[in-house]
Amino acid sequence: MAAERCIFGRIGAGEIPCQRVFENEHVLAFLDINPLAEGHTLVIPKRCVERFEDLAPAEAVELALALVIVARKVLKVTGAAGYNILQNNGRIASQEVPHVHFHIIPRRADDGLGYRWKPQESDPAVLTALAQRIWDAAG
Amino acid sequence: MAAERCIFGRIGAGEIPCQRVFENEHVLAFLDINPLAEGHTLVIPKRCVERFEDLAPAEAVELALALVIVARKVLKVTGAAGYNILQNNGRIASQEVPHVHFHIIPRRADDGLGYRWKPQESDPAVLTALAQRIWDAAG
Repeated sequence: MAAERCIFGRIGAGEIPCQRVFENEHVLAFLDINPLAEGHTLVIPKRCVERFEDLAPAEAVELALALVIVARKVLKVTGAAGYNILQNNGRIASQEVPHVHFHIIPRRADDGLGYRWKPQESDPAVLTALAQRIWDAAG
Repeated sequence: MAAERCIFGRIGAGEIPCQRVFENEHVLAFLDINPLAEGHTLVIPKRCVERFEDLAPAEAVELALALVIVARKVLKVTGAAGYNILQNNGRIASQEVPHVHFHIIPRRADDGLGYRWKPQESDPAVLTALAQRIWDAAG
C-alpha cells in the first residue's frame, strides 16, 4: 500500500483543488490561501518529499526551472519591486506541511514582513575550521 | 570593457578570498562571515546575475543541484534539526548584495530567528481571479 499523501501531495495529485498558477509533469504552483502578500505563491514537487535535502537531483532541477518561470509570472502580474524566496525544513524552521514547498513572497514598502536577522560577529579561525569540515563532508 | 563585478562576483572569480565549502565550474558556496547561525552558508552562481528571475535556465539548474549537496553537507556538520533556505530579490526584500545568493540557515530551538508572518484572510473569488492572471502571464 502506498504511503498516505499529505495535503500538498493530494493537491499535487489533483485530489484537492487549488488556485493553480503553473503546472507541468513534475511541479505545481498555486496561490497560498492565507497569503502574506498579494501573489504569495507556493511551488511544490508533485511527488511527496518531506525536505529539500531529500530531493532527487532531477526533482531539484525541475523545481528550479519552474521557480524561475513562476517568479517572472508573479512579478509581471503583481508589479512588486522585489520578493523573497523561502523554503523551510523541519518544524524547528517553521515547516508546517511535511512536503517540500517554496514560497514566493512579493514585497512592498512597509508591508511589515521580513526575516529576524541577528548577524553575529565571527572568529575567522573558527569559520575556517568549520568551512573545512563542511568542504570535507559528503554531500 | 566588462561590467565591474560586485563583491560576490569577485569572490566567485577568486579575486577575494572566502570560507569555501563547495565549488564547481558554475557555483560557489561559502560561509557567511556575519552568520545568523553556525554553518550559515551562501550559495551563488559565479557569473554576476542580480536577481533570481534573471537566471538562465542552466544557471538555475546548477544552483539547485549545488543547493541540495551543500544543504546535506551543512546538516551533517552542524547537526541542525532544520534549516531555512532564503533568497532575496530587490532592496525592498532585503537584498544587500546585487548578486543572486541563497542563504542556508541552520536552525536551533530558541535561536530567535524566523520570518515575520502575517497571514491574511483571503477572498476565494479574488484569489481565483489572481491565479488566472498569473497562469496566463508569460514566464
